Amino acid sequence: MKIYGDSKSGNCLKVKWTADFVGRAYDWIEIDTMRGESRTPAFLGMNPAGQVPTVVLDDGRPLAQSNAIILHLAEGSPLVPDDAYDRARMLEWMFWEQYRHEPYVAVARFQVKYLGKAVSDLEARLVERGAAALQRMEGGLAASAFLVGDRVSLADVALVAYTRFAHEGGFSLDRYPAVQAWIGRVEAALKIA
Amino acid sequence: MKIYGDSKSGNCLKVKWTADFVGRAYDWIEIDTMRGESRTPAFLGMNPAGQVPTVVLDDGRPLAQSNAIILHLAEGSPLVPDDAYDRARMLEWMFWEQYRHEPYVAVARFQVKYLGKAVSDLEARLVERGAAALQRMEGGLAASAFLVGDRVSLADVALVAYTRFAHEGGFSLDRYPAVQAWIGRVEAALKIA
Repeated sequence: MKIYGDSKSGNCLKVKWTADFVGRAYDWIEIDTMRGESRTPAFLGMNPAGQVPTVVLDDGRPLAQSNAIILHLAEGSPLVPDDAYDRARMLEWMFWEQYRHEPYVAVARFQVKYLGKAVSDLEARLVERGAAALQRMEGGLAASAFLVGDRVSLADVALVAYTRFAHEGGFSLDRYPAVQAWIGRVEAALKIA
Repeated sequence: MKIYGDSKSGNCLKVKWTADFVGRAYDWIEIDTMRGESRTPAFLGMNPAGQVPTVVLDDGRPLAQSNAIILHLAEGSPLVPDDAYDRARMLEWMFWEQYRHEPYVAVARFQVKYLGKAVSDLEARLVERGAAALQRMEGGLAASAFLVGDRVSLADVALVAYTRFAHEGGFSLDRYPAVQAWIGRVEAALKIA
């Protein structure tokens, strides 16, 4: 399998961590999105959306969207709960991540760290909605060690990816002690610390 | 099962269509989000994100996020392909829908139809990204009857929800003939026309 990814991107790291965790062999092909390397004709032939991560499976077929990729790679592994309701809750967090967390927490970090914007110049909606997403996680983690029960799952993989970089976008994790403790647990479980 | 939903919302209709298709009995509880009915303390107790759709399963446990709900309801039905790669492609479209389609196509429609904004006053990014999403679908549907192969799947359920209302947000579907023909096929397959 080939993983086309940008090591600066949490979405790409999700795929690396999952492949490593389940012991799936891969070649990592570094793509610098800032230099337009995901917009070349060759890349668009693999993924018309021009986004990383994109994987090319052993049989040559491509697959995109980080959370779809990690669901495919982790099927049948301990990262996907056996219980149908737990699996549904995992998916609930994963869709929520792409809708309510990544567009704010990851985008703020990108603008500050890679475009050089001052935190004080970030759009108010990024700051407010990013903080709301972290607060929602804080509530979800008040009563359990991981997002779905007491074991690490793809919900944690998906959400730790940008949460552990949230400070780079100006979000102070000191305000979210349950989230902060959870990051440590997920890093340890995935051996990515 | 109880479905708390707003009949004006494509995300909520996805859940209704899927439950109807698989023959799952439910009570529909209409929630008017414009009147704050998804922000009451009782509602937030079920779903701290304060969003519809939210379902309460027969055993009393809640579940949110439209695409997570329909994956849970349709597991083992013909709406979920047996083949692992087809299933992964279905998930790829479903995550893409929430990230690249709904935030533009659905939000433009909401602003025009429910907030009374003129199409000419919509933010340029909504119009451009919504059109890009429809163009991406047009490409994906050029060679196949449905988004994943020749059978209707949850990818079609997820994407038809707001695509069939796209004109209400100012997007002319005349520019996307493959998409337009696909809408008819999906409506017929789901019996929602």
